[in-house]
Amino acid sequence: MQPDDFQKHSVANTMSHDLFAELMKQFYELGWMRGSGGAMGCIAGKYLLVSPSALQKERIHESDIFAYDLQDKTCNHGASHSKKFTVSSCAVLFSSIMKKTGSECVIHTHSKAANLITQLVKQDTFEISHQEYIKGVYDPFSGANLRFDDTLVIPIIENRPSESQLLEPIEEVLQNYPRSVAVLVKNHGLFVWGPTWEMAKIMTECIDYLLDLAVDMIRNNLPLVREEASSPEKVDYLETVFEQ
Amino acid sequence: MQPDDFQKHSVANTMSHDLFAELMKQFYELGWMRGSGGAMGCIAGKYLLVSPSALQKERIHESDIFAYDLQDKTCNHGASHSKKFTVSSCAVLFSSIMKKTGSECVIHTHSKAANLITQLVKQDTFEISHQEYIKGVYDPFSGANLRFDDTLVIPIIENRPSESQLLEPIEEVLQNYPRSVAVLVKNHGLFVWGPTWEMAKIMTECIDYLLDLAVDMIRNNLPLVREEASSPEKVDYLETVFEQ
Amino acid sequence: MQPDDFQKHSVANTMSHDLFAELMKQFYELGWMRGSGGAMGCIAGKYLLVSPSALQKERIHESDIFAYDLQDKTCNHGASHSKKFTVSSCAVLFSSIMKKTGSECVIHTHSKAANLITQLVKQDTFEISHQEYIKGVYDPFSGANLRFDDTLVIPIIENRPSESQLLEPIEEVLQNYPRSVAVLVKNHGLFVWGPTWEMAKIMTECIDYLLDLAVDMIRNNLPLVREEASSPEKVDYLETVFEQ
Amino acid sequence: MQPDDFQKHSVANTMSHDLFAELMKQFYELGWMRGSGGAMGCIAGKYLLVSPSALQKERIHESDIFAYDLQDKTCNHGASHSKKFTVSSCAVLFSSIMKKTGSECVIHTHSKAANLITQLVKQDTFEISHQEYIKGVYDPFSGANLRFDDTLVIPIIENRPSESQLLEPIEEVLQNYPRSVAVLVKNHGLFVWGPTWEMAKIMTECIDYLLDLAVDMIRNNLPLVREEASSPEKVDYLETVFEQ
Repeated sequence: MQPDDFQKHSVANTMSHDLFAELMKQFYELGWMRGSGGAMGCIAGKYLLVSPSALQKERIHESDIFAYDLQDKTCNHGASHSKKFTVSSCAVLFSSIMKKTGSECVIHTHSKAANLITQLVKQDTFEISHQEYIKGVYDPFSGANLRFDDTLVIPIIENRPSESQLLEPIEEVLQNYPRSVAVLVKNHGLFVWGPTWEMAKIMTECIDYLLDLAVDMIRNNLPLVREEASSPEKVDYLETVFEQ
Repeated sequence: MQPDDFQKHSVANTMSHDLFAELMKQFYELGWMRGSGGAMGCIAGKYLLVSPSALQKERIHESDIFAYDLQDKTCNHGASHSKKFTVSSCAVLFSSIMKKTGSECVIHTHSKAANLITQLVKQDTFEISHQEYIKGVYDPFSGANLRFDDTLVIPIIENRPSESQLLEPIEEVLQNYPRSVAVLVKNHGLFVWGPTWEMAKIMTECIDYLLDLAVDMIRNNLPLVREEASSPEKVDYLETVFEQ
Repeated sequence: MQPDDFQKHSVANTMSHDLFAELMKQFYELGWMRGSGGAMGCIAGKYLLVSPSALQKERIHESDIFAYDLQDKTCNHGASHSKKFTVSSCAVLFSSIMKKTGSECVIHTHSKAANLITQLVKQDTFEISHQEYIKGVYDPFSGANLRFDDTLVIPIIENRPSESQLLEPIEEVLQNYPRSVAVLVKNHGLFVWGPTWEMAKIMTECIDYLLDLAVDMIRNNLPLVREEASSPEKVDYLETVFEQ
Repeated sequence: MQPDDFQKHSVANTMSHDLFAELMKQFYELGWMRGSGGAMGCIAGKYLLVSPSALQKERIHESDIFAYDLQDKTCNHGASHSKKFTVSSCAVLFSSIMKKTGSECVIHTHSKAANLITQLVKQDTFEISHQEYIKGVYDPFSGANLRFDDTLVIPIIENRPSESQLLEPIEEVLQNYPRSVAVLVKNHGLFVWGPTWEMAKIMTECIDYLLDLAVDMIRNNLPLVREEASSPEKVDYLETVFEQ
């Protein structure tokens, strides 16, 4: 049975500069982008919009957003600001994730739960099963969302001194976990990608809820995965299918 | 003595599309409807309004809300959206709860406390006594609100892969716990119903407060129910009375 | 040395219906007045304004506020609503506290920390010393604010089935703890009073911060009172002075 | 390699009375300035702006802000209020920090995490390494931001009865920890300074996040500093360089 009540396809709300800035503010208020941290990349028509680096995310103006013309390969950015700040160092990561997964939006957050869970979980994946919010996460392999009793698997990678150095380990993740739509970076945060900005945002909220819940579950000695959880298809098989 | 200071009858603020969307946004901000989760159903004159599935609850427009004409049995919904998303899969649950309890409003939330308490409590009911916020909960049997020293009992049911599959266990709850105005779903969330939207909302806030408090009480080894708590009338008796 | 940086005298912002409703909304957002709980009473010129009972505190309109003419002893309240709801059952408590202490504002909140601390503290007073926020609390005996190294003492009373039944124990508190500006009610909440609405609000925020902090301190086995804390003057002496 | 993605130089948004009041409100909402606590000092052209003492920080009007003319040594403050409240007792601290460090902005907050961490950490410094948010903190010695694997060191000083009495210990901190941009005051709060208001605000958010995270790490027995953390340059050496 197909999980219900979570978004399966795009609703036609095109990303705009205005909406982009509004979302940055919302993500700040959710505690995801404090201290100028966090970033978003999103396709908007023929542009790739990327948040600026080092600016307070709740105070971003439309003219602060970097817009890359995907056809002309030029950057259409308010000239008045061009020398004062630069595009998020996540841009190269976003671009790679989009190319390799076909995603149109990547959100990078710094919530406390995302950080803490990478310290509490001792394996190199975060796994949780039998949670309603798992149904909010898209499975790029089946094209459907996960089931309530599926095990959601999010790989955890080591942090690096510079965000651009995360490119290699993230590309490895995309290779080794083709069913994943997210990666956790130790003592740092979370990346989530999806076919549309709505799905990327909804999945980020679902995953962040699950990470926050998991921190409390661990504190209360509650197991994250139930024994009877359905096993995800073998990764080996998936790799064969996804290999290009 | 009748508990005081909590709402006992309806104040005449009719539900409207506008207010419905405003409440969705408020529930999102309370942490109840993250990641497109959660739902509400509410009678508004001759219509039953139900939230859409899979849309971000803080961004719902009036035209996104499904309106069922209770007389004509038709659905009056903005045609422009009709193919893009569907009514909440809770609609069938809401409809059943309303019919069986005479409630005009049902709220379904996904707060972290509601989820966590179902994992911490090992019985199939959540019980708490001697809390001021218990006075905010309506007792459909007596027609009055509960007393401070009453034991509030909320049944807990297992989650199912699909929300529509919760219909049977929820109907059992309505049968077995006719004095209850709420049900907890394991690893999922909370349903609360009431005679008016105000009472349903107020009771949801009171119950969510109590669940959140109970998580902390358990963490601090504080008992949820005091020995001298007044026993609720026998359920057997109630069933006889409510049997139709 | 006189503690600095906290308010010692009134700033002339008169309470109005508009401001009253705005504060209710703010208190709701602070988590103090969820589920229609909590209340405020405040002198505004020749009126005593009191919040209505059972209404959602974040949605109170100016016409919902009860205004008692202190000279005519009449209640000037929007007639259109008069049958639908009643004044907060705290009104009698507020009135008594105001008369006995000369306060012009009383705030009654239901924060989770205020509730939890009454369960964690086993004596009949909450005591804390050596905290900066203690300097935000007014000492009606000295006319100055407390010092950083003073011990703030807040009596804790048992809850009663009805709020009006709290009158007697609160009057006892005013008698026995004349230096106190607050009282905690077990499993219920907090009452704070002050010479002006600004001072009552500021003290409620300071005390709520300290209660919330104390819950975490207890969880971490940190003592709330340091041995070298300055002893408050003997209550016996104070009682003699305050006796009327 | 230079840490990326955090602000390294000023973006030309001049501080104004309007923005100052807006930031106070934001800091209140972040939980940093409850109960009239907290303060900010900031250079705005030829003025030093300082928040008023004892006023509710979320309700500050532009005319409430104290403006010192740095050339004329006069205070340009709305006369209508002048007798009703006074400048923050932090003003002397802000002024000293600015002179000794060349900072143009100092923010003083009262978050619960800042208070709690001073009670949980038993040394006289808070230290943390291997956290992404460390990259958000400026190192006045190197002129660059810290690296992910650097150890962030924040000195902790004892609180004093009056804020002005903190002048001496803060000046000692500036002498002994010239690489620090912050100081924690026990059972009180945090001071952070930076070359611009944006950097001071961003660093306050980064540090507050780290303090809040550290409280949870300690609760979960996770070490704050990894053994392989890069050692900060010897303080002895730094003192020689900075000695004037």
